[in-house]
This record gives sequence, C-alpha cells and structure tokens, in this order.
Amino acid sequence: MDNITQIAFNARQAANVLQTITTAQKSVFLNQIYSKLALAKADILAANKVDKDLALKQVEAGKLSSSLYKRLDLEGAGKFETMLQGIKDIDQLEDPAGKVQTATKLDNGLDLYRVSCPVGVLLVIFEARPEVVVNIAALALKSGNAAILKGGKESFHTCSAISKAIREALDAAGSEGLNLADAVQIVESRQDIDALLKQDKYIDLVIPRGSNALVKYIQWNTRIPVLGHADGLCSTYVAESAKLDLAKTVVVDAKTTYPAACNSTETLLVHASHLKTAFFQELAKTLVVDNGVTLKCDAASLAALQKEGVAEIFKEHKDKIQASDDEDYDTEFLELTLAVKAVDSAEQAVEHINEHGSKHTDAILTEDEAEANRFMAGVDAAGVYWNASTRFADGFRYGFGAEVGVSTNKTHARGPVGLEGLVIYKYRLYGQGHASGNYGSGEGQKEYLHERIELKGNDTIATLRG
Amino acid sequence: MDNITQIAFNARQAANVLQTITTAQKSVFLNQIYSKLALAKADILAANKVDKDLALKQVEAGKLSSSLYKRLDLEGAGKFETMLQGIKDIDQLEDPAGKVQTATKLDNGLDLYRVSCPVGVLLVIFEARPEVVVNIAALALKSGNAAILKGGKESFHTCSAISKAIREALDAAGSEGLNLADAVQIVESRQDIDALLKQDKYIDLVIPRGSNALVKYIQWNTRIPVLGHADGLCSTYVAESAKLDLAKTVVVDAKTTYPAACNSTETLLVHASHLKTAFFQELAKTLVVDNGVTLKCDAASLAALQKEGVAEIFKEHKDKIQASDDEDYDTEFLELTLAVKAVDSAEQAVEHINEHGSKHTDAILTEDEAEANRFMAGVDAAGVYWNASTRFADGFRYGFGAEVGVSTNKTHARGPVGLEGLVIYKYRLYGQGHASGNYGSGEGQKEYLHERIELKGNDTIATLRG
Repeated sequence: MDNITQIAFNARQAANVLQTITTAQKSVFLNQIYSKLALAKADILAANKVDKDLALKQVEAGKLSSSLYKRLDLEGAGKFETMLQGIKDIDQLEDPAGKVQTATKLDNGLDLYRVSCPVGVLLVIFEARPEVVVNIAALALKSGNAAILKGGKESFHTCSAISKAIREALDAAGSEGLNLADAVQIVESRQDIDALLKQDKYIDLVIPRGSNALVKYIQWNTRIPVLGHADGLCSTYVAESAKLDLAKTVVVDAKTTYPAACNSTETLLVHASHLKTAFFQELAKTLVVDNGVTLKCDAASLAALQKEGVAEIFKEHKDKIQASDDEDYDTEFLELTLAVKAVDSAEQAVEHINEHGSKHTDAILTEDEAEANRFMAGVDAAGVYWNASTRFADGFRYGFGAEVGVSTNKTHARGPVGLEGLVIYKYRLYGQGHASGNYGSGEGQKEYLHERIELKGNDTIATLRG
Repeated sequence: MDNITQIAFNARQAANVLQTITTAQKSVFLNQIYSKLALAKADILAANKVDKDLALKQVEAGKLSSSLYKRLDLEGAGKFETMLQGIKDIDQLEDPAGKVQTATKLDNGLDLYRVSCPVGVLLVIFEARPEVVVNIAALALKSGNAAILKGGKESFHTCSAISKAIREALDAAGSEGLNLADAVQIVESRQDIDALLKQDKYIDLVIPRGSNALVKYIQWNTRIPVLGHADGLCSTYVAESAKLDLAKTVVVDAKTTYPAACNSTETLLVHASHLKTAFFQELAKTLVVDNGVTLKCDAASLAALQKEGVAEIFKEHKDKIQASDDEDYDTEFLELTLAVKAVDSAEQAVEHINEHGSKHTDAILTEDEAEANRFMAGVDAAGVYWNASTRFADGFRYGFGAEVGVSTNKTHARGPVGLEGLVIYKYRLYGQGHASGNYGSGEGQKEYLHERIELKGNDTIATLRG
C-alpha cells in the first residue's frame, strides 16, 4: 500500500470507529481537542510566525497577495480564541447522526427505521486560512466523520502544529479502546491531492473550500462526490410592481456589502417599464453615485441612463456606466460591478436566470405575491428569495450554527450546508426471524402492514431501540 | 448544437416547466399517458412482436439468452395491464415535491423554508424490459423531473412505440401553455449514451438499471451523479447466541428465494463456536442437502463439515462442499453458492463486512440485542438487519410504493430508493425588503431570531404560502 492509499485506508478505519461513538463521547473528544490546542497556543503561534515570515518575503517579492498574507495570520486580535470558541460552539449543536427520520412497521415484529449516520471519510481542501483545520476537525468529529485535510502550502507550519495537537487529543481516545488517531489527518503537497482524488474506495466526499479555480479543478478530477460551488452568479430581478425604496435597500445590500462573496448579486434584471420612469435612474444613481458601483448595461438600460436630462446625474461617473457584452451576463465580477438587463416579465427573468445563473441564489423584488411564487417555483437555484438580499445565503444567517460550505449541486445537499450535509442514513431492520418468502399474494402468504410508527420528533435510535 | 446536446437541452427546458406544475396537473398528465398507452396497445404489441421475432433469431443463433428474450415480452398474461396499472399506482403516491421540510423565522417578516423540489433531468439507462419506459416516465413526472431513456437495442421497436404514445399524451399539455413534449425522450444507440454522459450541464442524475457491467461502465464514464449499485455483496452473520431454527429460516430465505437478486446473501459468517457443535452441520445440511446450495468454506468450516460422523451427511453432495479461496469473499455469485467463513466475534464479522461487502445490506442473527446494536452501528451499509433476511432490501417491501433503484452511494440516497430519491430541496426566503447589512454585533445592528416555525407535518409550500 503506497503512502497515500495508507492515509485513505487509515481514515476509513477511523471512520468505522467514529460511526459507533455516542454524542457524549464526541463531546469528550471535542473538549480534549480544545484543551490541547489551548495548551499548544505558543507552539502554534510560533509555527504561524514561520509561515508569516516566509509569506512576507513572497509578498515583498510580489509573488503573494497581501490579502492572502492577512488570512494566514492567527495572532491578530482574538483570532486564536475565536478559533477555539468555534469548537465549543460546534459541541453545543445537535448531533446530526443517530436521528430516526422515518419508522415503519413492515409486519408484526418487523420494524424498519431510517437512521442518520455519518457519510464516512471527508477530504477537505482549502487555501490559506489555517483555522479551517480546527473548524473542519470539529465539524467532522461532531458528525462522526473522519477527515483528511490539505491546506495551502503557505500555512503548512501552522496547520502541522494544529494537527499535532489534534492528534494528541484523539490519541487519548485509545485509552477507551477507540483507535481514532487517524480521524483527522493532514497531507502536504498538491501531488497528494491528485492521488487522494483517486481514492474513491475509501473517501466518500470531497469538500473544496477556496477559489473558483480550485473547485473546478477538483470537480473535473475526481469520481468522488464533491460538495461545493465553483460559481456564485446571483441575480436580482426588480419586477414591475417593486417599490423603489425597497429595491434601493436590497440591491445595494446585495451588491456592495461584500462584493467578493459568492452570494453577492452580479446581475440586475429590471422590468422594462422602469426605464421609462424615474425608477431606474434613481436606482442607478444610488448604486453608481452613492455606492461607486459600475453598471454594465444592455442597450435599453444604457439608453435610459444616457438620455437627455438623465445623463447629467452621472456626468462625473461616466466611466461607471458602460455597455455590456454577452459575456458580462455569465461573469462573476466579485467586485463593485453589476451587469444590467431589461426584461419584459418575471418569466423572461426566470428564463435568463436558468440559462445564465449558477443555481446559487436569486431574488425577485415585487409587491405581487403570486408573481413571487411563480418566480420562486421557476428559478432552478438553491436559494430563491422574495424581497430580500441574496447576501442572506449563508449557513450562519440561516441559523445552522456552522457552515460546511455552500453547494450548488442538485443532489445530496444544496445551498448553505450545515452539519446535516455530513450525514446520510442507513436502514435498520429489526426482525424476529422474518423471511421474505412468506410475503406475497400466493396461497398462505402474508401481506405487509406498512404502518407508520409514530415519532415524537428528535427521536434517536438509541432512545427508541437502546 | 449537436443532436445529443439538443436532446439534453430540451430535457432541461421541460424540467424547468415540470418544476412549476401542481400535483393535480401531474395527475392529469399521468392519466393522459395511461389512456394513450391503452389506446396504442395494438401498435405497441405489434412493435413488441417485431422485437421478439428479431430476438428469437438471435436466441436460435445462440447470440442472445432466452431469459433476455422472456424479459422482452409484453404480451404475456396481464403484462401490459400490469404496466398500465403501475401508472395509476404511482399517481396515487404522495407528491414528493413541494413539501416543506424545515421552516425558520430569521427575523420578523423574514421567513426561510426548505422545500423539496425535483432534481431536474434524469438519464435512465436500462436493458431489455420495455415496460421500464412506462415506469420511469411515471416516476419522473410524479416527481417533476424530465427523463431521457435508453433501453436495450433488443427492445427498440417496443420502446419507440411506447414513447410515441407518451409524447402524444404530453403534447396535449401544450393546450395549457406548458411545453412538455420533451419531458420524456428516448435515445437509441450506445454512442448516444457516451455523448449524454458528458452533458453534465443539463443532466443532473444518471440511473442505470441493469447489469453490474453496465453500472460500472457508467460510474466510470461520467461526472454526473449516478444513483445505483454495481455490486450487491450481502453477508449474514450467525452469532454465538443465534437460534438454529431462526438461522435456518433466515439464511435459506436470504440465499435461495432469488439467488440472482442483489439483496441475496453471498457470504455466511458463522461464529466459531458453532463449528464445535451440531449447529453448523445442521445449518449446512439444510442449505446443501435440502436446498441445493454449494458452500465455499474456509479451512475451519470445511474441517467441521468433513470430520468423521459429519461427512456422511453430505456424502451424496460432496461436490457442494468446497474449499474457498480469497476471491470468493469478494464475489457476488448470483446463484446457489455461498461463501462461508468462521469468525470469533461480532467485531470480526463487522470488520470482514466493512472490508469485503458492497455496502448494500448485511444481517446479524443473534439473541443478544446489545450485540445486534453494535453490529448495526458498526457495519457501513445501506441496510443493517437484526434477525431478518437480507432479501427484505427492496422499495416495495419497505413500503415506498415504487422503487427507483437501490443505491450503495454514501451521499444523496441510500438503499432502496423511492420517489424521494428523485427530489432535492431549495430554500425559499420570504422577506419585506430585508438587507443583510442590518444584522451583526455592531452598533445599531440587529440579531437574528432563528425561531423554528412549527409545522403540522405534510405541510406544502402551497398551503403555507399560497
């Protein structure tokens, strides 16, 4: 077995153990990790200093962005403590495994339960931020999964120091006869990733957290299911009945509060009627003049902003009113730029979004509830919003307590994903010697009962069946 | 756009329409399909005759198995009517789309609903049986998905005739302004499949229904998620405390009622203590002598059956008691052959299963409930059974009313999959002009409420929000 296969195999062995442990045991391990990390603070920050010094030289040589350098830093105000607090927060969340989702009496003494359980082995690939190691380790443990992590090479020393402390904490589980030492493993090189992406025998889910390019590379180079999103091309449609003030508030929030985020609006669709009134010029003024947004406009919306009496408003911001080309409607700008297009109906808006969007999050602003419902049914996206900013698409804002990632997949988990995205289910069938051949429509054969067993909510297999 | 891309694109357009239609509309379309098929019965059976005549020549030439020929036939006793009745049965099932799964008040006037919705476009690949076209068309429509189907070339004429009738039924939806003509499409050649497997922009889920080789080929040749299972290597473990009569009943059922089925037991694990008593020889006698099963035994279990005083039992069945080799524990025999291995504990059984099984369905026979629970927690499989035959792993037996397939995946859907496996969810957020920038811990910022909105059960977005 080569080195990488061994890592994947060991992760699977740890996953086999993790799927059997209780919520209380998980809590013990999470608290051990917390303590070991707190004890290792000096070592971890020393390692972080090594990474930062190396990175600084790269920044000075123009080979690394200063924003990446900033994300490396673990020493800044309260950053280390926030990282540790994250473990306690995750410990407090409901255990996503062991929950009874459905229960059916197939026959007397033959009961079927669908019970949530860990997915198994996660491969998490991320870029600079070293605190992701702690976050993912805690999420994985809480959900009963093993994890293999690969961080950016810039954070290598920090990640190694963190991972050493985590391994020490998990080693302690050995005293209870549980071999969890390999529950969280770190790999170093890019080559390791390529080898791990082939380990579909042992790895069940890949979670890339990082750039568009990283996610796309992974999606194209593995047979293992990938949870994530390459693009976040969100649109907001301002319908005919939309109120101007509401549109200003929501669109400014959706575009300007964090332009680099995947849930920021990149395309503004406007009902054509607004071009004939002051509505669109007012909205554009708020965006361009008050908030420094550049608009890339289709012919109709451009004409509306360049016509006599309107053009003056934008005189000093002329460079921010531009003609769009086709590509702009397929572009995630990730900056204060917004593609604009006039449409004649919600149906046209839906059609545009289904063709150009990334199935992430799209909004309609309208006073017409029926129109909003049509839009929300018709748009094929993880999030469909009525009179709200696309920026709400986030696990913490949704109340999940933690975010594993945002998925634009059409299977398994979609949208912001919390701990629930790290579990699947298994069927547990409890019989008393039942044989399938006794059921059927033949002479002397029995019929299935298929009676639903009532659940109280929050039932676990432990409380129901011991 | 080439021909295949056009098919996939058209399916996506149909899927966009399908996700907006109501349960009542689905019912109308299903009934139209039922009627059109009933009307076209003579044409379909004529087409079936063409397929059968061609196939018969192949059978006579030794190029086709007679069992495949048999599966082609739609004319046999009640077969056509059973196929039609399947549509009515699926129509009666609960609509899996539009269900509210969770609801949270993020803030006053800002309500978040997680609502089930269709996956989108399904590509279903199957072998001979032409009635699969009707079954899949009904399942897809009921769940709001578009489907592209590819049957075996032997059933081409029948499938075409069926699909013509379905298209006529769906064309009628055009009168309601719904373009559903391409909701169910058929493709012909194997080359089409290879091209379709590349259409991940438009196709969301591939469902192969057929041989091991077919499923494996598809799993290895597409980036699109695949729902299915290549192998069904199920094991049954007879623990120390198992009752002999119970073991006989369950193991015979698990092995002999349909040896070619994916849920048949292929490996029998026996606690070593049973080799020292009459238990194992009695169980083996029932299997071998009474039921014609061939046992491929490890050294210990072989010795137990060949020792003095026991060997006589099997004298006339000597050829059915064989020594196993390593490969036998990784083999899906699909016939009356069973690999046998002695183990020392449930933990060893779990270890063997997690290493050699296919994550399909595995059972423990024991009188010790705690041991059963350890086994069921520790085995990583879609189904884990206590004192029941692995043959219960089936959508109809589970009470789903329909079976889309059996999945050994670790994400999305696992085990026998009913209509629920054809839906995912989207988040619908209903606001009143809410902006994300107003929330946070800064001065004047608000906190999220994150209050659970109580659901009654069976809530749909239509009843909750109109």
